[in-house]
Amino acid sequence: MSKHRVTLKDIAEKLGITIATVSKALKDYPDISVNTKKAVQKLAKELHYQPNTQALALRGNKSNTIGLIIPEIVHYFFSNVIKGVMNIAEQNNYQVLITLSDNLLENEKRQANLLFVTKVDGVLVSLSNETDNTNHFDIFKDYDIPIVMFDKVNKYFECNKVAIDDLQGGLIATEHLINQGCRRIAHIRGPLKPLNSIGRYEGYKKALNRYNLDFDASLVKECNDVTLEEGYEFGKQLLQTKNPPDGIFTVTDQVGSGVIRAAHDLGIKIPQDVKVVGFSDSQIAQVSQPSLSTIHQPGYEIGEKAAKLLIEEIELQEKEDSPPIAYNQIIFDTYLIKRAST
Amino acid sequence: MSKHRVTLKDIAEKLGITIATVSKALKDYPDISVNTKKAVQKLAKELHYQPNTQALALRGNKSNTIGLIIPEIVHYFFSNVIKGVMNIAEQNNYQVLITLSDNLLENEKRQANLLFVTKVDGVLVSLSNETDNTNHFDIFKDYDIPIVMFDKVNKYFECNKVAIDDLQGGLIATEHLINQGCRRIAHIRGPLKPLNSIGRYEGYKKALNRYNLDFDASLVKECNDVTLEEGYEFGKQLLQTKNPPDGIFTVTDQVGSGVIRAAHDLGIKIPQDVKVVGFSDSQIAQVSQPSLSTIHQPGYEIGEKAAKLLIEEIELQEKEDSPPIAYNQIIFDTYLIKRAST
Repeated sequence: MSKHRVTLKDIAEKLGITIATVSKALKDYPDISVNTKKAVQKLAKELHYQPNTQALALRGNKSNTIGLIIPEIVHYFFSNVIKGVMNIAEQNNYQVLITLSDNLLENEKRQANLLFVTKVDGVLVSLSNETDNTNHFDIFKDYDIPIVMFDKVNKYFECNKVAIDDLQGGLIATEHLINQGCRRIAHIRGPLKPLNSIGRYEGYKKALNRYNLDFDASLVKECNDVTLEEGYEFGKQLLQTKNPPDGIFTVTDQVGSGVIRAAHDLGIKIPQDVKVVGFSDSQIAQVSQPSLSTIHQPGYEIGEKAAKLLIEEIELQEKEDSPPIAYNQIIFDTYLIKRAST
Repeated sequence: MSKHRVTLKDIAEKLGITIATVSKALKDYPDISVNTKKAVQKLAKELHYQPNTQALALRGNKSNTIGLIIPEIVHYFFSNVIKGVMNIAEQNNYQVLITLSDNLLENEKRQANLLFVTKVDGVLVSLSNETDNTNHFDIFKDYDIPIVMFDKVNKYFECNKVAIDDLQGGLIATEHLINQGCRRIAHIRGPLKPLNSIGRYEGYKKALNRYNLDFDASLVKECNDVTLEEGYEFGKQLLQTKNPPDGIFTVTDQVGSGVIRAAHDLGIKIPQDVKVVGFSDSQIAQVSQPSLSTIHQPGYEIGEKAAKLLIEEIELQEKEDSPPIAYNQIIFDTYLIKRAST
């Protein structure tokens, strides 16, 4: 096959529209205008575009294998996601190949390609903290290989998405500190790009605003690696200022546990002197002493739901004349788990 | 290819010898007897056996991909193994596909097959707790696809192995309790089959024996799932007996953290009333309050070493007339990390 096979992407680029629009136009989706459909179908014919069934055939037989790209593995949340995915996969006779991007865009790109050549039937992905454009996943679109994004999703990529409402979670966490009497609340946030880190920070600010508490930029610290060690360092910095916070909301339980240890080493009492809320409901929050209040993030259920959506879409793809797929964003609610740290 | 291709396994079965012996005989290894070599070479000729280079060619191009089968993922140790493997893989331009057996033999079998059809260049595996025979890995032998076993290895499978000396670790942990004044020492052990669980238990018994302490079977509890919850339950049971132990050595830090929590809930003081030592040097041991003394298990280094050995073997295989590979078992030393729990 030395000749370049015409892809949906070629058509999309020539017409200046998205791949998803081309795909929908060729499938006669109702939400695409008649003019667009005509233009796409005309160009597809001129370029001798081979429809999806051909693409599937070119790829060979079904592998009954799902690819799963996760950004990190020490995180308790992702362990639970993996368990949820594997449970649904097993029930439906699929196997799961996991790759670990380590939060690096370059790894994620290589892994997307690896899963493509490995001929997985579909891909579940939680994006790396560095990922702001998702072009490396377009090849799956192009071959009609379903993708579901979960947790760290991209706003613009058209696919099913499963996430929690991070803003709501950040709001609940911060409101809880306010209700416990805190008035000077710090936030140790995650990196700038990931939507979940942004959402939790927005929730923090919304809570301050709702209760007419001043926002003080000096009380916000930004993690790079989101580790216990960073929590320890930022916790020490915050607690050693002249006017230290009386409450700290941290982007994860790992970071929160670091703050607890920093307070312990400084002889500062939790919850008397400062209250701490984490995020994720991980095992480390239970084990910390005092145990860490946290926001429950249903990793297992997110994994299950994402895998269900993916397998449904895979099996729909296999049918000829399958109906249009309407993509959804499923949002799981979060709630507070109150423990000794507040 | 409707005709069954003659494999090393066919030859091995006909002659009643192992696949490894057949492979070595065909390669003229010095440790195989002349008679065996003659018998193997004669039968291989009669059956029109195609040598390895053909097998490799049949498999298609090199994938530069390593398969990694791990038994569990919440365990901090395996997270570190994965990081070590990925570091070496990246340096050598390999990618890593991870599968999770969840400690179930059936899963491990399916995953071995999946990695085979996925055409990985080599496999790293830590066996499930249920695995006592490793026939499902013979197909890799048969196609000269290298395997390295790590941590939970099989005694009889011929390949490179990387592990720690679990007996030594168990001995160090128990001796430490004895040196801290404990005389009635309990052990919450892992399941019966895994060699690492057996080794730690043997180390415990060896230490008792060395210091002339009686072995009391009622002080040994056996975990199924090796969780914090099991540690909590067994900890409660042991600490509520009439003659409770003054020291407890647990098979993992998860289990040890459960014991610490049980003591806390019963109002029993650590380390005054009972001392506890875990195993693995996981994050949970640092975070526990009091922090948990533990045996360091170098997961990252084990992952690196296993990946190095595998890649070396893969690259040796590719050379024609490669010299015989002498398999080794690399044993990493363990050492005690003393914390507040002792």
